[in-house]
Amino acid sequence: MKITIAQLNYHVGDFSGNLEKMKNAVEIAKNEGSDLICFAELATCGYPPRDFLNFADFIHKADECVQELAKCAIDIGILLGSPTRNPVPEGKDLYNSGYFLENGQISFIQHKALLPTYDVFDEYRYFQPADYFSTFMYKGVRIALTICEDMWNVGNENPLYTICPMDELMKEKPDLMINLSASPFAYDHAPERIHVLRTNVLRYQLPLFYVNQVGAQTELIFDGGSLVFSQNGKIFDELPFFETCIRTYSLDEVNANKENNEISKDKYPLIHDALILGLKDYFGKLGLSKAILGLSGGIDSAVTAVLATRALGKENVSVLLMPSEFSSDHSIEDARILAENLGISYTLFPINDLYNSWLKNLDPHFKDLPFGLAEENLQARIRGTLLMAFSNKFGPILLNTSNKSEMAVGYGTLYGDMCGGLSVIGDVYKTEVYELAAYINKDEVVIPINTLTKPPSAELRPNQKDADSLPDYAVLDKILYLYIEKNQGPNEIISAGFDAALVSRILRLVNINEFKRHQTAPVLRISPKAFGMGRRMPIEGKYLNIK
Amino acid sequence: MKITIAQLNYHVGDFSGNLEKMKNAVEIAKNEGSDLICFAELATCGYPPRDFLNFADFIHKADECVQELAKCAIDIGILLGSPTRNPVPEGKDLYNSGYFLENGQISFIQHKALLPTYDVFDEYRYFQPADYFSTFMYKGVRIALTICEDMWNVGNENPLYTICPMDELMKEKPDLMINLSASPFAYDHAPERIHVLRTNVLRYQLPLFYVNQVGAQTELIFDGGSLVFSQNGKIFDELPFFETCIRTYSLDEVNANKENNEISKDKYPLIHDALILGLKDYFGKLGLSKAILGLSGGIDSAVTAVLATRALGKENVSVLLMPSEFSSDHSIEDARILAENLGISYTLFPINDLYNSWLKNLDPHFKDLPFGLAEENLQARIRGTLLMAFSNKFGPILLNTSNKSEMAVGYGTLYGDMCGGLSVIGDVYKTEVYELAAYINKDEVVIPINTLTKPPSAELRPNQKDADSLPDYAVLDKILYLYIEKNQGPNEIISAGFDAALVSRILRLVNINEFKRHQTAPVLRISPKAFGMGRRMPIEGKYLNIK
Repeated sequence: MKITIAQLNYHVGDFSGNLEKMKNAVEIAKNEGSDLICFAELATCGYPPRDFLNFADFIHKADECVQELAKCAIDIGILLGSPTRNPVPEGKDLYNSGYFLENGQISFIQHKALLPTYDVFDEYRYFQPADYFSTFMYKGVRIALTICEDMWNVGNENPLYTICPMDELMKEKPDLMINLSASPFAYDHAPERIHVLRTNVLRYQLPLFYVNQVGAQTELIFDGGSLVFSQNGKIFDELPFFETCIRTYSLDEVNANKENNEISKDKYPLIHDALILGLKDYFGKLGLSKAILGLSGGIDSAVTAVLATRALGKENVSVLLMPSEFSSDHSIEDARILAENLGISYTLFPINDLYNSWLKNLDPHFKDLPFGLAEENLQARIRGTLLMAFSNKFGPILLNTSNKSEMAVGYGTLYGDMCGGLSVIGDVYKTEVYELAAYINKDEVVIPINTLTKPPSAELRPNQKDADSLPDYAVLDKILYLYIEKNQGPNEIISAGFDAALVSRILRLVNINEFKRHQTAPVLRISPKAFGMGRRMPIEGKYLNIK
Repeated sequence: MKITIAQLNYHVGDFSGNLEKMKNAVEIAKNEGSDLICFAELATCGYPPRDFLNFADFIHKADECVQELAKCAIDIGILLGSPTRNPVPEGKDLYNSGYFLENGQISFIQHKALLPTYDVFDEYRYFQPADYFSTFMYKGVRIALTICEDMWNVGNENPLYTICPMDELMKEKPDLMINLSASPFAYDHAPERIHVLRTNVLRYQLPLFYVNQVGAQTELIFDGGSLVFSQNGKIFDELPFFETCIRTYSLDEVNANKENNEISKDKYPLIHDALILGLKDYFGKLGLSKAILGLSGGIDSAVTAVLATRALGKENVSVLLMPSEFSSDHSIEDARILAENLGISYTLFPINDLYNSWLKNLDPHFKDLPFGLAEENLQARIRGTLLMAFSNKFGPILLNTSNKSEMAVGYGTLYGDMCGGLSVIGDVYKTEVYELAAYINKDEVVIPINTLTKPPSAELRPNQKDADSLPDYAVLDKILYLYIEKNQGPNEIISAGFDAALVSRILRLVNINEFKRHQTAPVLRISPKAFGMGRRMPIEGKYLNIK
């Protein structure tokens, strides 16, 4: 038997576009003599469809899409994911299902049993868990079909679920496992994914075809990396990351394989490529092409500009250089050199005149009150308003350049530097931004060395440095990581060797700044715990926020 | 037996504060000779604790709180909700539990079985459903304890769940039902709640004590309205809405009751009082007191100013009047009269000079391009920046004044009039804002009549009217209601009698403006479907957004 994995980039709600992509893939598979082509979880409507699932019209369109695709299931079998209505009134109204299409019709359906409802996932919001488990026979091969999370309850010390779908399916003695997934990227996720899938392969002694989707849906970046496992636990093939790919395999060759063809993966190249895909799809799926951002001469905007240029093309990225009286001498020069290195158009727009005009207007009200937060934020808001004026006048979308460290502790101005339609590096800690910049500069100096070596500064008052307000980023980022990614409380973090007063101060800052993060753009997710839909914190919570 | 309902206002994560409130209530109940006092669902940590539940330290503090409260359970029984650890590794790590405390210790625990995971609820994100159902005996009365949603799967045509906890508990022949809840307000929720609870009472022929929490947690407003049902289905007592209240009842009197003491509820008084509580608790729980907002002379900012003044006191509310060259003659006069009616301090700050300074600075870049969206939004952003400058300088929190209709169709400027820490009327459609204004003016003219009668306008270009860009609000709001509250698709809405092209246009506007709503402040929820945590839509979704 020949089996095709179609690792495609779906678009949520674009039924006709998704159908077209799948039809084209079916043609390719047929030309390769394939017997069976496999698409991803919820391929008809794209993943995650979120509350669109509550619309009967939306489900109806997904059904139509399955029916249309079934017409192509002639001389080939098709596996894909799509929502299914729950025929009984009790329970949720939908299932998250795997469909097998053959001979022009739907021949088999297996629902998903394990519904991820944590982090960015909300599946039990919509779906009823499967209440039966069944395999199907196709061309003499008995196939166990599972959907994504269904394979993830194997050998865990603290499993989230009380059942294991593959254990149930094994009662029917299948020959082959196929898993249809929509599994989003995090820089540390691939080894975990391979470990879980291999655990299944070795436990059940069956080959496995694991089909993931690729492409970004706003904040979630799906990396692809679909896998073919031989029954001995070796990886027969691993599909590329961050690219669509259609490949056909002979099941006999997979079964006979003795080699492990795993792609090596390093953190920063992965993050780099993930963010570029995130940017590309944000613009592409919204039907947009042009971006604008402010270039300060600092590392955050520099890295964002590089990523945007690589994602959208230099002709589609423009930047504003907006020095104030507090900008350092080097700032504009560093920003200008970067823009020239990237070949993107830049506009110098000093904000002194606007800033002074604001101060003059505010003076009768502010009187003799000293320079402070209001004046600092004012500069950031003038810049935000300026960028939005260019955005509104000429059409480019403003990119946000905040990093995860400053978003965590609220070191940024709401409606100022926190403006933007998409947060590009909002899931990248400051220390990681430096690593990413080093990776960008590995072959040639794209980002000026001065940008990498000067002490970070918001440049909103004379001689300001981040270090005046915040601990060293090397320390700050470690505390943030333990709190945000690892859910550790103050006692655990202090036992890890950090100063108790500092830990209290940082955790308090994270908690009291939830109101700022509530109003920020969607953040491209590259870590196991990003700000946004995957981290749901009370704004008014009175926990760990005592001064 | 005497039973006390403690309808209290908890604060998420404020363990010591919540414990203190409960201890005081226990003292009051003891003084009234009560045998049993009942608190709300998750009373120790407050509801909803959201992802704080992922912190072991947070659960530990909730446990300590239960232990402390148990010490007060001498000569009185105590019922309350708190999270419990799941002792087995399989399944979620926590239960959402009801505790019975007596003789200084925990004597009984019943977990929640039906975990709401829809709209604003995320309970299956954290909790394992109950796997046993048991009653307990106290002073000769067998009590069936349920938690909130556990009573909501009775007699529904399309139930979300496949089990009914009370059916299970009835096997032990209880004498009394007690339900501990955290049920948020919506203007149409009380009759539904009474219907569901009465259905339980009549089905099981048992009296019911229903204990709700009161108070707002950011966007969610809990209304209280706790209920005591006699076993004949009559309401023996209904506790007040939007107020803490502790009342003690004789079970014999409840059983003997023949009257139905239901409080009558009208939509706009409820919304009015709910928003005031939402404002009060947002400020109170964040430890803040002062608010600022921009007063345009229009109805949205007028209603917001009235509500803020009633919630926070006139000494704590200040407003800016920020006319531009496009402001109508009446605008400032209407705003000034309102401020004087309310007795709040107002500052006149014409933005012409700032606006002209911006235009002069932008002119070399914008050249001869015609006046357009950029210039309109610029005025809104100057106002937003101005309000934030006052906020940063003097400390008041900026209130957002957008209504639900304009938030729905994106008729507002991001970082401009969409600024603010809390959206006060973002869940109130424009037509409902008028009704609310009429209710406010019912006894005396607080909001100037001119504000109520003039055609709505953003006043960002000469002679602009909302009606230039949008259909009549009476039509718009009906379409929005069917789409947002009723999850109806285009065909259903068109069949309800609306123009097909208009419906397509409006639904497209709602969908493509998800990016704006993503960046707005939390919205006080008063309807069954508010923007925010309860409505989770893709930003890039390509559904119903074709031009």
